[in-house]
Amino acid sequence: MIRLPMMAALVATLFTAPSAQARDNENEAVTHFTLDNGMEVVVVEDHRAPVVQQMVWYRAGSADEPKGSSGVAHFLEHLLFKATDKLESGEFSATVAANGGRDNAFTSYDYTAYFQRVAADRLGLMMEMEADRMKNIRLTPENIETERDVILEERNQRTENNPAALFSEQLNAAQYLNHRYGVPIIGWKHEMEELDLEDALSFYELYYSPNNAILVVSGDVMPEDVRELAEATYGQIPANPELPERLRTAEPPQIAERRLIYKDARVAQPYVRRSYLAQERDSGAQEGAAALLLLSELLGGGTTSYLAEKLQFDEQIANYTGAFYKADTLDDTTFDVVVLPVPGVSLQQAEEALDEVLVQFMEAGVDPEHLERLKAQLRADQIYARDDADRVANRYGSALAIGLTVQDVQDWPDVLQAVTAEDIMQAARTLFDKRASVTGWLMKEDAQ
Amino acid sequence: MIRLPMMAALVATLFTAPSAQARDNENEAVTHFTLDNGMEVVVVEDHRAPVVQQMVWYRAGSADEPKGSSGVAHFLEHLLFKATDKLESGEFSATVAANGGRDNAFTSYDYTAYFQRVAADRLGLMMEMEADRMKNIRLTPENIETERDVILEERNQRTENNPAALFSEQLNAAQYLNHRYGVPIIGWKHEMEELDLEDALSFYELYYSPNNAILVVSGDVMPEDVRELAEATYGQIPANPELPERLRTAEPPQIAERRLIYKDARVAQPYVRRSYLAQERDSGAQEGAAALLLLSELLGGGTTSYLAEKLQFDEQIANYTGAFYKADTLDDTTFDVVVLPVPGVSLQQAEEALDEVLVQFMEAGVDPEHLERLKAQLRADQIYARDDADRVANRYGSALAIGLTVQDVQDWPDVLQAVTAEDIMQAARTLFDKRASVTGWLMKEDAQ
Repeated sequence: MIRLPMMAALVATLFTAPSAQARDNENEAVTHFTLDNGMEVVVVEDHRAPVVQQMVWYRAGSADEPKGSSGVAHFLEHLLFKATDKLESGEFSATVAANGGRDNAFTSYDYTAYFQRVAADRLGLMMEMEADRMKNIRLTPENIETERDVILEERNQRTENNPAALFSEQLNAAQYLNHRYGVPIIGWKHEMEELDLEDALSFYELYYSPNNAILVVSGDVMPEDVRELAEATYGQIPANPELPERLRTAEPPQIAERRLIYKDARVAQPYVRRSYLAQERDSGAQEGAAALLLLSELLGGGTTSYLAEKLQFDEQIANYTGAFYKADTLDDTTFDVVVLPVPGVSLQQAEEALDEVLVQFMEAGVDPEHLERLKAQLRADQIYARDDADRVANRYGSALAIGLTVQDVQDWPDVLQAVTAEDIMQAARTLFDKRASVTGWLMKEDAQ
Repeated sequence: MIRLPMMAALVATLFTAPSAQARDNENEAVTHFTLDNGMEVVVVEDHRAPVVQQMVWYRAGSADEPKGSSGVAHFLEHLLFKATDKLESGEFSATVAANGGRDNAFTSYDYTAYFQRVAADRLGLMMEMEADRMKNIRLTPENIETERDVILEERNQRTENNPAALFSEQLNAAQYLNHRYGVPIIGWKHEMEELDLEDALSFYELYYSPNNAILVVSGDVMPEDVRELAEATYGQIPANPELPERLRTAEPPQIAERRLIYKDARVAQPYVRRSYLAQERDSGAQEGAAALLLLSELLGGGTTSYLAEKLQFDEQIANYTGAFYKADTLDDTTFDVVVLPVPGVSLQQAEEALDEVLVQFMEAGVDPEHLERLKAQLRADQIYARDDADRVANRYGSALAIGLTVQDVQDWPDVLQAVTAEDIMQAARTLFDKRASVTGWLMKEDAQ
């Protein structure tokens, strides 16, 4: 089974402007409660079609792995499709399919999530199966061997065969001096090769329990029905009293500007990518992240952005420019800018042009009209997004998994709308500190 | 109490050509045996003066620390001078002093070592006390608070107030993508601030046991007397059956050349330092390390070296040049080259000149006369070093702590003498791969 969404989710995080919830929360029927064993439940009602999506999010991702076992969070995600006390290996997904549904899972730095989309009347069965594999997986040495080959092949396809992915790994490793965000989600190959049954089970036993999980159900359901089903399934599993606090190693002060060059014969389009260490969304204090999100849109969000206007249209030295900010992380995140030069323009020239444009931007300040347009766009996106209950579900699940609250999710659209030009410039002044940055060049093997 | 040697030992490792044992081992009276509980013992006889040095080396250094607790190995080293079941806090060193001796300790990436130098007839007392604190330390919350302030102040003095040390930390962090050698021995400040009693005790209980220790006694002693005393003291402590294998995270392939710039107003002398990932001494296979050691001497070992001749004397663009290779580590180490330009020469120019000289060296190859001179010098050093029993003791202790054997130590001088010019060029070709390197510029705040 190919667990496709892992990297896809990451790319989506990196390249999509996060959608946010409509300001009018009455239109978004969200109910939130907690079972006695500590499992949080979020229900997003959408009665337009008789379908339902169940997601279970564990507050355990690659950044929670013990040292030396990189990739075990994602490995375990694969292994959850093997046998349990009640199901044969593969029977989980086969049952979902036999019921006309589809299922999958994904792993990120901060969480691992499992989901199924089925006809609404099959929700109880889905919960029963998902609750079963929260505690009762039965792994064999053969499972380990087979599935380790699968994840290694996944790494081969997505990373080893992809110069941009290799470049990105080395860049992240240089960005983080001490924090596990510097280690790839899929794992370092040499550590993946050593993952064994014990690694997988100890991660499972440590982190897979109702008091470390969030259930999100979206679609044609009533909250009271979800509660009843949840109590009958997940509610029967005792909380794990040994659940550890999340141990995340923090960064020391980043005081030395870093650069790196990765050369690879397979590179078709060389580019410059700079990543800055940046604050993330914090519960009750999302203003800084909101300002950075708008900054990324102003600078590099499409063809009307500052970078595009200057480098693609005025100077015509770039084929593509962009700015990416991942707001939704538990710990300090990154803000990236990218320039793909046109043929004949060197990476040195591209980088110098980028630096010049950043200086110009800091001098010129935020164009109030541009900011208003972006806010209107965000508001429209949010209203549109409301229509997709699964996206809403996803937003709540990931937010709760990274330490935000339901209130934070509901405040976020207003926080974004309240950002001022001065807030953005203030955030930019803090952000653009080269001492906390890595500038990477991705080059063709024999380039300049 | 200031535990001075920690950084001093490190600097010594970096800036001193490792001495090696004389070829004529008959002149070096070394006895090696193992107690029933697994504690290794090395005795180095030297009967010229009635003094003795005891060292106990634990195979536990900063690179063995759990994530998030950097500095705990060194912190624990300090705490071993507090109370035990039998001694008051501070009584250990006071007793050594009252007996006319001196004592201290030091921590490195791969080990922590404690030593006392006293009159030969006090050895039994020293062993009794050292064996006592292997198992019986009694720490109070006040010890933790006080000693944490001491190590923080130590970090302040040696690192925070020293731009070259800060630069070195950032450079190491960029060199290692996954291995703990990228974390400073003394610890990241923010993690040191959080070290507590439990961190210290769990490191102590995990690693401090006779089967993880090496006793080295040098001076006016007979091996049978040392064995008797050791059996009566350390021999009474049971082996720890839970002693874990050393879990060291390995590096992924280093495929992207890195650079960094650290600017600091306090920098008086800017310089360029490049560090390459390099193989270390491996048991039974020391040839590669021997070739690198000679390479470092050829390139940057003093005023007759290749770098000095070209950059200090011919071109006169450098005040100082050097090459440093730390052969004595458990895992992959570094090989560093340094150029301090004369006033008026930029770091850019200095680096370009360095690169040019390296190319010239690779083309010119090893000057056979230069190599012969170096080997003769090493041989002389080794014969001279034999006279210092404590240095011999140190060499055996550190070697055994990093996975080498007594045989490896005794072979090392011959391995060094057997290195050929072609071995060195072969080692250099493997070493000088910029993809596994970091080039750092240490600059004055407002420099170019």
